Parts: sequence; structure tokens; C-alpha cells
Amino acid sequence: MYISTPFSDVIDRATGTLASPDNVYQRRLGQMAGMYEDAEAVRAALDAGDPVIYRVYEKKIPELAGELQWCMSVTLPGKIGREYYMTKGHYHEVRDTAEIYLCVGGTGYMLMETEDGQTSAVEMREDVALYVPARWAHRSINTGRVPLISFCVYPGNAGHDYGTIETEGFLKRIVEIDGKPTIIDNPRER
Amino acid sequence: MYISTPFSDVIDRATGTLASPDNVYQRRLGQMAGMYEDAEAVRAALDAGDPVIYRVYEKKIPELAGELQWCMSVTLPGKIGREYYMTKGHYHEVRDTAEIYLCVGGTGYMLMETEDGQTSAVEMREDVALYVPARWAHRSINTGRVPLISFCVYPGNAGHDYGTIETEGFLKRIVEIDGKPTIIDNPRER
Repeated sequence: MYISTPFSDVIDRATGTLASPDNVYQRRLGQMAGMYEDAEAVRAALDAGDPVIYRVYEKKIPELAGELQWCMSVTLPGKIGREYYMTKGHYHEVRDTAEIYLCVGGTGYMLMETEDGQTSAVEMREDVALYVPARWAHRSINTGRVPLISFCVYPGNAGHDYGTIETEGFLKRIVEIDGKPTIIDNPRER
Repeated sequence: MYISTPFSDVIDRATGTLASPDNVYQRRLGQMAGMYEDAEAVRAALDAGDPVIYRVYEKKIPELAGELQWCMSVTLPGKIGREYYMTKGHYHEVRDTAEIYLCVGGTGYMLMETEDGQTSAVEMREDVALYVPARWAHRSINTGRVPLISFCVYPGNAGHDYGTIETEGFLKRIVEIDGKPTIIDNPRER
């Protein structure tokens, strides 16, 4: 069944919250420990309290092609070793579906790649609208000192597919070298 | 063909412009004169120079279901007689497609209705995210003193259908009575 009645909600551009989310989830480091390059830094951060890396505030929308999923994505500032806090990243289960991110605060990158090995990193900052094309996996990376916050919209039937990312990681990483965000190769040796 | 490479653009929240639009169009009063209730006020405004009522800045996206059209919608402040500046309004040609508006500035209403006679008016102001469900015609109305600006996203294949609105108008109008925005019936006698 399609949504039958108009509704609105209010975004908070400073915190990234929705006034009335249907669902809120957060990911702690422990839920994505293997995704970071520095196993020792991961252990230390887990011992120090397993930090929250990102939060998502979403509305529940029917998973139909003509509907639109939307959420607020909030990636917190911080590093694990030299690697910046980042989301798990995912493909859409229905590959031929795009996504739009409007950044409303913070600074960072959207790291993207395709299954045939293309990569892209687009700088995100307030008022940047990013088009993630169909078939591109995407991961938000916060390289700044405040939360990186985006308003996200994608087709209702898109779904999430973490599979290949979860086991192999992305082809690139973004780490701090000489005080600056730097894109490096991820050898995918694991 | 789907979009193959990520791209970004920058929105200007004060003016509603995109830094690099693929297409910009504007509607003057003369292109929608019959939609206002006060024919005499329309004539006077046309004689005084045919004002621009709204502008749209858009990117060119393939008209495919998994893609996402997006644009900036800018409805200027003003009135024709007692009736506020408004967009033409439309259904989506593919009826089972929703739309999301994130208001980034200004104040007003989204006036909506269905073909079976349901109506809705949702207040728009900065940071309000509105879900226009499938099958609801929608028209932006600026009741304030600055441009009403929204970031809009809808499915790539949605299309526009102005037909029934263009000939019969919406079931409701929003006009200024005693200095306040007021929703009144539109008898559809024309």
C-alpha cells in the first residue's frame, strides 16, 4: 500500500535529528570493527568504551518503487588511529537505484565505488547536493570536527546490500596524513 | 542509459539557485493568468509588467524509475489581488510516484489534492521536510515576504501532468483575509 496522506517532519540542521523519526539506529565501532585498518587502535577504542560512529534517523516508507525513502545521516567526528569515522557503506539491493544526499552541516567525503572497480570521492560540506548514481556503493566519511550531516533520499524499493563491503571493504580509505585527509589504496588482503 | 558517474552541485539557500543548473525556467503571471481568482487584478499586474511568479533550477536526469529528478523550486513573494503567488501545480504523469520537498527558506504552504477530492495544506518553513504521496497534485504558495525555496526530489520517471489543474484549478485557494493566509473553497465554476 502506498502512503495515502501527506505528512511533514522537521530536520535539525545542527544535530541531524528528525523531530518525529519512525526509527533511529546507531552503529558503534564494535559493529564494524573489522572495517578499520588499524586493529590495535580499534582494540584501544573498544576498551575505552566502544564509541558511537554514526546515527540514522528515518521515516518508515513502504518499499515500493514510486515511494521515496528518506533519512538524516549523522556521521560523528573522530578517528580510529589515522582513519576517520565512517559509515559501513552499502550498495542498493536493487542496483539500478540512485540516491541523493544534501549535506546540511559538517565536512567530509562520500567515498564511492562500483563492482567493476571504479572509485570516486566527492567532498561534502554544507549545501553540497550529491548524486550517487545507480550501482555505486557509498560511504560517508567525516574529516572534520563537527558531525557530518546529510538529508538523504532514495527510491522506496532500493534496499541495502552490505555484503561485499562488509567482507572486503572499499578499494580506498581516507586517513589523516600530515594533518590532512588523504585517499589511499586499501589492498583488500584480508 | 543511467547516470554513470557521481556528480555534485551546490545550492544557495538564500536565493534558491543551483551553482550549475542544466536547465532554468521561470513562469510569469501571463503564463498562468487564468489560475488566479481576480481577473481585474491579473490584468493590472500584466499591464504593470507581467511579474515573474516562480523559478525552477533543475538538473537533467534520465527519465527512468530508479533515477531521481531533483531541483530547486523558488516561489517569489507577492499577491495578485488577495491571492498569494503560487506555482501552477501538477500531478505526476506516472501517478504512483511520490515527491519530497525540503524547505530551505521562506514561509508558505503546499496545497495538495487528489483526483477523488481529498485536500491538504501543509505549512512550509525552513527545515520542514514534506512528503507528497503518490496521486496528490501539489502547488507551492508563498505567504511570506521572501522567496519560498525548496529542494525537491522525485522519481526519475514521474513526469508532470498539468492537465486537470490547468483547466479546473485546485479545490482550494489560499488568500489573504484580515492580514492572514486563509484557505477558501474554489467553486470551480469556470
